[in-house]
Amino acid sequence: MPGDLPYNHSMSNDFLSTDPYKGVRDFYPEDMAIQQYIFDTWSKTTESFGYERYDASVLEPASLYKSKGAVNEEIVNDQTYTFTDRGDREVTLRPEMTPTVARMIAKKQKELAFPVRWYSIPNLFRYERPQKGRLREHWQLNCDMFGSDTVAADVEIIALAHQLLLDFGAKPEMFEIRINDRAWMNERFEQEGFTHEQSNAMLYLLDRKAKIDNFDEEAEKIAGKPFDLGLSDPAPDSRLGQVLAGLMQLGINNTKVSLSTVRGFDYYTGVIFEIFDVSGENNRSLLGGGRYDNLTGLFSADPVSGIGFGMGDVTMRDFLETHNLPMKKTKSEHIVMIPTKPDQDNKAQMIAALIRQENAGTVVSIDYNDRQVPKKIEAARKKGASGYIVIDETDGHSIQRFE
Amino acid sequence: MPGDLPYNHSMSNDFLSTDPYKGVRDFYPEDMAIQQYIFDTWSKTTESFGYERYDASVLEPASLYKSKGAVNEEIVNDQTYTFTDRGDREVTLRPEMTPTVARMIAKKQKELAFPVRWYSIPNLFRYERPQKGRLREHWQLNCDMFGSDTVAADVEIIALAHQLLLDFGAKPEMFEIRINDRAWMNERFEQEGFTHEQSNAMLYLLDRKAKIDNFDEEAEKIAGKPFDLGLSDPAPDSRLGQVLAGLMQLGINNTKVSLSTVRGFDYYTGVIFEIFDVSGENNRSLLGGGRYDNLTGLFSADPVSGIGFGMGDVTMRDFLETHNLPMKKTKSEHIVMIPTKPDQDNKAQMIAALIRQENAGTVVSIDYNDRQVPKKIEAARKKGASGYIVIDETDGHSIQRFE
Repeated sequence: MPGDLPYNHSMSNDFLSTDPYKGVRDFYPEDMAIQQYIFDTWSKTTESFGYERYDASVLEPASLYKSKGAVNEEIVNDQTYTFTDRGDREVTLRPEMTPTVARMIAKKQKELAFPVRWYSIPNLFRYERPQKGRLREHWQLNCDMFGSDTVAADVEIIALAHQLLLDFGAKPEMFEIRINDRAWMNERFEQEGFTHEQSNAMLYLLDRKAKIDNFDEEAEKIAGKPFDLGLSDPAPDSRLGQVLAGLMQLGINNTKVSLSTVRGFDYYTGVIFEIFDVSGENNRSLLGGGRYDNLTGLFSADPVSGIGFGMGDVTMRDFLETHNLPMKKTKSEHIVMIPTKPDQDNKAQMIAALIRQENAGTVVSIDYNDRQVPKKIEAARKKGASGYIVIDETDGHSIQRFE
Repeated sequence: MPGDLPYNHSMSNDFLSTDPYKGVRDFYPEDMAIQQYIFDTWSKTTESFGYERYDASVLEPASLYKSKGAVNEEIVNDQTYTFTDRGDREVTLRPEMTPTVARMIAKKQKELAFPVRWYSIPNLFRYERPQKGRLREHWQLNCDMFGSDTVAADVEIIALAHQLLLDFGAKPEMFEIRINDRAWMNERFEQEGFTHEQSNAMLYLLDRKAKIDNFDEEAEKIAGKPFDLGLSDPAPDSRLGQVLAGLMQLGINNTKVSLSTVRGFDYYTGVIFEIFDVSGENNRSLLGGGRYDNLTGLFSADPVSGIGFGMGDVTMRDFLETHNLPMKKTKSEHIVMIPTKPDQDNKAQMIAALIRQENAGTVVSIDYNDRQVPKKIEAARKKGASGYIVIDETDGHSIQRFE
């Protein structure tokens, strides 16, 4: 800015904008506390099931997303952040975590003791028009189990998803677990004599079923004959039947077989599921996932079976707000030290250090402002402190607690 | 890959690479546990001083880094990741956090109750040649206090830095706090009659003092006369003298006035400091920061004083390794359920759910593998579990603990 001119508010062009980049969020402490509460609850529940945390960089080689089947093509073509670095490498800001975790599993396939239970809380990037529940950057809990293709693994991963919501204080009647099985759908399409293209077109149509009103007509176009979706329950000895029975035994009844639960990604091969808020306030799924049995095959010749899900922070927060569920952890003890004069500032720091040392987890902050004691007390109360200590020339300093 | 050909290990060109992008790290669970331990220790200590966590996106408008004085010019010109998005906006992956926090403070300046104590643990990006302690992406603890220019604030922020190292188990004799004062240096240069350019050149030279062997010669070139750096202690009533006395009162003695501690960034205006490992193993600073009294002026007409520091994860981990300090939190109880047949898998899940419910914090995982019980027990022991439960047809299932 021109150094000769006096600062002037109206000359807005001289100043930098305080806005963040379009479609991403600043987390001021009050929002960050909610974000941390969500992350901590995710971690605690997931770890209690024996899942171990991993992470990777947001930067990935662009090639990771270009292989057919690795990721939704629409996302790669229109929605990734891909650029060329100063060394002429093509690099992408990860749009989802599954290709990364498949890469990491493939890299250490020989050393890992399967089944492997892993989770991560990555931030993901998509260039799209920002709208409710959809931003250009969001965080997502990703849980996966690799190396087990048993029914029990399907049951466990869905039970974990269910438990995550309960641990946020949700009641089972607040949400619904919609389940389907890609393998079962494929069998069904084979019985109909569908070609590969017809099957894909039908899956794509089913995915849009809730959004269109001429499903039957469109389905007939694809099938070349009237097509009845059918709503029969899966046979008890089918994979889906066994998974539902297993969940029932664990007391999980808020499930629904949903033939229109398809999930966009091509890589699913077995059970797929999504969890929806039943209040009608939030129409995006809270969580979605499924079984994919050959993702690591993109990297090497040894396929490893996997099942997992992702759960976003934005929809999670919307759910907590809609149902008036807690959004913060219980506050720890917070004492504010109130020096009465600048020459008491250092004494306040000494006493603060002692209190912290003797009371693990207690927060002690100091008000160095040049203002009267009653104003400092009022400020401490407003900040939500649990008490305060006035520091003066006397030796006795005791905690005064707010009611 | 061509669908007609059989899988073949030797056809490596058909497969995606499992390597991460150059200069960034994959965090497998064992590394992630160390990373989480570092982050948790950072958070806990910093919060105990009353600092509140904030965050923002890694994506920032490129303009944020282009204003003179906002950031080191070398970084902007040669080392940022800057690209143009699909909407023709220039965007930068943040190379440091200070411009972001200054932007956020400036945006809510009217609403915030100063002084504000904030911290964050962002990942930062620099395009440079990867080498020991320097990667293209690293994480950094950033602590700042805004709105207080008292000596007590200087003392507090340095005491916090000191406490952080103690809380990792470090002894004060393992590290050294080097302190200087930009304002004091500037006064000194004014007394010498230096121009602004001479002062800057001298600061730049001082910054490189440890790396060159002809300091006196270079200093004379800049000053136009023999230049004696001088090593006199700061006067007791000077700012630096008061800060040192305050630290001493808090029992912090491992300090050293260091005229060659300059810190690259142009924006510092007062006390500056760096912490070094004294073992000689790690020659990069563990932590560095200082007072900058006008950063928010880039955004609006009201300057807010600030003091803060940054501390990186890579150098922190190197320090812990060098001094054999703990690198993990104490492990929580971990029980492995061992079903004896597939039809016991679901029973194992039911019992696991009960144990988790009744023992908050306990990890319970299940071994679904199709192998003999002794092998499962051995696998649980290798995994570091504290005990196991064999699930069979009987009703009595008790925890067997490893020694």
